[in-house]
Amino acid sequence: MKNISIIGSTGSIGTQALEVVSANSDTLNVVGLSTNTSIDLLEQQIEKFAPRIVCVMNNDAALILEQRLKEKGRSVEVVTGVDGLIAVSTASEIEMLLTAVSGMIGLRPTLAAINQGIDIALANKETLVAGGKLVMDAATKMGVSILPVDSEHCAIFQCLMGNKHEEIKRIIITASGGPFRGKTAEQLQSVTLDQALKHPNWSMGQKITIDSATLMNKGLEVIEAKWLFDLPRDQIDVVVHPQSIIHSMVEFIDHSTMAQLGLPDMALPIQIAFFYPDRIANDRQALDFHLVRELTFEEPDLHSFPCLQLAYDALDIGGSMTCVLNAANEVAVAKFLHQEICFSDIPRINAAVMEKHAAIANPTLDDVLSADAWARQIAMETTVSRS
Amino acid sequence: MKNISIIGSTGSIGTQALEVVSANSDTLNVVGLSTNTSIDLLEQQIEKFAPRIVCVMNNDAALILEQRLKEKGRSVEVVTGVDGLIAVSTASEIEMLLTAVSGMIGLRPTLAAINQGIDIALANKETLVAGGKLVMDAATKMGVSILPVDSEHCAIFQCLMGNKHEEIKRIIITASGGPFRGKTAEQLQSVTLDQALKHPNWSMGQKITIDSATLMNKGLEVIEAKWLFDLPRDQIDVVVHPQSIIHSMVEFIDHSTMAQLGLPDMALPIQIAFFYPDRIANDRQALDFHLVRELTFEEPDLHSFPCLQLAYDALDIGGSMTCVLNAANEVAVAKFLHQEICFSDIPRINAAVMEKHAAIANPTLDDVLSADAWARQIAMETTVSRS
Repeated sequence: MKNISIIGSTGSIGTQALEVVSANSDTLNVVGLSTNTSIDLLEQQIEKFAPRIVCVMNNDAALILEQRLKEKGRSVEVVTGVDGLIAVSTASEIEMLLTAVSGMIGLRPTLAAINQGIDIALANKETLVAGGKLVMDAATKMGVSILPVDSEHCAIFQCLMGNKHEEIKRIIITASGGPFRGKTAEQLQSVTLDQALKHPNWSMGQKITIDSATLMNKGLEVIEAKWLFDLPRDQIDVVVHPQSIIHSMVEFIDHSTMAQLGLPDMALPIQIAFFYPDRIANDRQALDFHLVRELTFEEPDLHSFPCLQLAYDALDIGGSMTCVLNAANEVAVAKFLHQEICFSDIPRINAAVMEKHAAIANPTLDDVLSADAWARQIAMETTVSRS
Repeated sequence: MKNISIIGSTGSIGTQALEVVSANSDTLNVVGLSTNTSIDLLEQQIEKFAPRIVCVMNNDAALILEQRLKEKGRSVEVVTGVDGLIAVSTASEIEMLLTAVSGMIGLRPTLAAINQGIDIALANKETLVAGGKLVMDAATKMGVSILPVDSEHCAIFQCLMGNKHEEIKRIIITASGGPFRGKTAEQLQSVTLDQALKHPNWSMGQKITIDSATLMNKGLEVIEAKWLFDLPRDQIDVVVHPQSIIHSMVEFIDHSTMAQLGLPDMALPIQIAFFYPDRIANDRQALDFHLVRELTFEEPDLHSFPCLQLAYDALDIGGSMTCVLNAANEVAVAKFLHQEICFSDIPRINAAVMEKHAAIANPTLDDVLSADAWARQIAMETTVSRS
């Protein structure tokens, strides 16, 4: 029996992770769960998975849930806020933490878990984008494994199985290209929020859907890949592959390229993170090559989608710059979701904030948190002059 | 320094293997070489690689070469015939034998090498198609590795790296479809030898080029795969992939599919066989996804290309039947190359010979050799009634 905690259990990844737990209830046991405010869903999850401890980030919601549980006679420890999240993440009996919260909030609990020697299944991009060096250094020191829970990095992880790090020539992250693939920079000026929220291949949260439309998501994945796989920027390429069947690839020094393919389904990376080095049978849908018929590839258009270029630039500058890009982007995307700015303003804000930042080379956790707060502030204040 | 012998060194795989040796002359040393009759090329190879022993299958040619070498003062042992081939294959100082001869002639030297504890790089299909159980049992007994030297099995070999045998759901061998992909059985009645010899993706020997056109080559690969990877027939699928970029795939029980991609280039499987578990940098051409643009997949047409179905049938029957199919096919292809029969007669002859054979379940080496001789005889005598 493997004991796990899942922070962000009511989100998209969290609920899919609990499906994996359900399908493997003989080998996985849930110790801790967390939500921001979705206490109704969390309450159902408590009924089903009987965790020992849950965190509700919002204090008022936490009190309501606590009352409800008390009435039912359910003895579950309810904690709240960041300290509560850390308590769930570092519960002494867990062997693995799935970090499935969205945003910078994931960094501190993940670091705390690593420092307790707990393996990490990582679905939270910001943890590595903002605190990559801190996290990987801590993981190395503690001998902790960081297992990627997204399709692209899990694909690379699988391509690397049985191979040596020094034999990697480059990794090739595939990108669907999002809903606006093929559009010119000019055409992108007038796209609407509704259009941006319609991803061609899958349904996800709003933030990541917009990031997929700007290619910022791919940029964040490039930065993550640098840390996860310990590779310099020039060994990380992106290719647009609209069918999203090849989830990513690794080219080796002998020019052999390994690829991982499948239907878009987060159950696989979740399952691999939970059970590695074993693969576990499941009842998910298999890939049928007679239905696939065609896989295509294109170069990413860095002119129309400057966010990917900004990610490369931030990686080149290094230090706190990737954290700043991420923070600026979170604010810019929120503004776009509130229809305060247009789609093309997102990269403009990101670039403007990056330009104002003097990067700190080896930021501490405090440096990262301040750079993040500073960048959010600047992004909030940045007004864009439409070209 | 790794000492190797190459039998069939003047053929297509043999010469490419010696290119790999040239590029890695600090780590590979050639002990033995062999040819059927190409003594001019063998003489050049002797100059360049200085083997201790060479075999010329044809006795007259052997005498000529011996004379020439004597005149030059080159001290190389020249042996001849099957015993000579076995002497090259079992030279006491070698660690690996590359079996690159064409046809059943490869079986005995390969078995002899295995019984000396010598690892095998196997480019000869007939060895496993005819003597699969004998060879794999001997390899297991002697703790010898059999490393596949063809693109498809090497791809599967790479896809399996770092994974467990019991986690395989199926392997998926890709087929280019050959020059007649898309043609109906009726259209195939009238194709010419010249058309059959024009493979769309690469240039190889005549026999294998015709086998690619009939899909018999894919059938032989299915049979080989059964033995190499210890899988039942229903875990071995074929998909037509005309671009020949994905060299084959493995689907695992978790529905993750791993694929190996590259340009068609035999240097890779040769190199992997020589250096496994290491990958070695080379100066071959890399795959450029911006040039690849499109990969497509189709179901194989077993009606137009019955040879693939015959291979599945032979595998179902098992024992000596795969050997018989291979022998019949060698004769049928030779008849087609001599323009004695038409293209569609090849599967007809194969089917007719299989029908006459009562399979021996666990054939000994003698059984295999007799079944082979019998099948050749019957195939020679078989006259086909054109439909």
